Amino acid sequence: MTLTENARAPQQDRSRDTRDLILETTLRALARVGWNATTTTVVAVESGVSRGAIQHHFPTKEALMRGVLEYMYESRNTSEFSINSEVPAGVDRFDYIAEQVLHYYASDHFKAALQMWTAAIGDPEFSEQLQLHGDRLARAVYDRVVAALNADTSDLRTHRMIQTTLDLSRGLGVADVLRDDSRRRNSVAKFWASELRSIKQLDPVALPTSDRSSAPQPLS
Amino acid sequence: MTLTENARAPQQDRSRDTRDLILETTLRALARVGWNATTTTVVAVESGVSRGAIQHHFPTKEALMRGVLEYMYESRNTSEFSINSEVPAGVDRFDYIAEQVLHYYASDHFKAALQMWTAAIGDPEFSEQLQLHGDRLARAVYDRVVAALNADTSDLRTHRMIQTTLDLSRGLGVADVLRDDSRRRNSVAKFWASELRSIKQLDPVALPTSDRSSAPQPLS
Repeated sequence: MTLTENARAPQQDRSRDTRDLILETTLRALARVGWNATTTTVVAVESGVSRGAIQHHFPTKEALMRGVLEYMYESRNTSEFSINSEVPAGVDRFDYIAEQVLHYYASDHFKAALQMWTAAIGDPEFSEQLQLHGDRLARAVYDRVVAALNADTSDLRTHRMIQTTLDLSRGLGVADVLRDDSRRRNSVAKFWASELRSIKQLDPVALPTSDRSSAPQPLS
Repeated sequence: MTLTENARAPQQDRSRDTRDLILETTLRALARVGWNATTTTVVAVESGVSRGAIQHHFPTKEALMRGVLEYMYESRNTSEFSINSEVPAGVDRFDYIAEQVLHYYASDHFKAALQMWTAAIGDPEFSEQLQLHGDRLARAVYDRVVAALNADTSDLRTHRMIQTTLDLSRGLGVADVLRDDSRRRNSVAKFWASELRSIKQLDPVALPTSDRSSAPQPLS
């Protein structure tokens, strides 16, 4: 490593931090005030980053929105709205996963995506990006749920039940946009967890040895 | 009836027709080009009604959007996207109802409502109107499904299954906004119909005599 590179590293970190702060602020603004009200000025005021710096990172609204999509995907495991497949002790696995997925789709992540989704309708290129993002994210959530529930998706009904978990969560997410629908959502999560108990699960013994350590625990 | 009233009637009909044409065009525009692109100019071009006449009927965008909500509710039984509880001969009742509900939430009615729903986020008054409309419409769809399936909603699981049908449909409706998701939706409808078969149904014999004529037919 040269001296120049050495000296540049902290500056790159700061630049990365600023970028993430802009994206996080934009995401929150989209979820809370909607597409039209999410302007550079609003993001500047809310984030404390200057309009000039925002425009340096994201020259256009399109670039900013592409950045938000990428940021959502990257932060899906680390954000407060990640779907955690490690079930806390004493908590029912099905209750926990149903609640996590339904909660995820009522988060600012989903609400921001929905704002983009409806705004993109007249814009084929942005629409295409959003669909790719949506498919990639849905696939990641699906895989997470399958792993957490040790689901045997070679069984068609089991596959459909997990797919339905995602579509149902999306529907409940829409219901939460204009009001706090969490009370109803919590009771739906309990109900849906009890429906999910009828899926077919993989026999843990049948898993390859190398996967054993990270495999979901058998249900109690 | 006076002569004046007699003479006015056809004019009132024409005025009503113009109003409905404006509202239908606005609904389609919202669903297809989105909230921002749905301007008086676009509605005028698409409907063939002059901008002046549109402004006469609906002086503001708010008035126009309130009109669309009312129009959606009123036309829910007569439009091409109505949920018909009369099951055609030879068609499975559960397949038919699941398909009708899922299809309804992928219609321009739902897509227009979703455009309003996401645009209303910064507007408490409009947001309030939309929630009232959403609740009223969901209640009407719920009642229609209950009647069509002869469902015993005093059974909690049965109530939840029908409620879930609506939330699931809403989620599938979102998935259809940016692309034609009908193929996947059709297979989900088949799957969901088979899940709905496990609901508890009312014994037709137990229905009060006065309701017998309009009561759903017992399942074959």
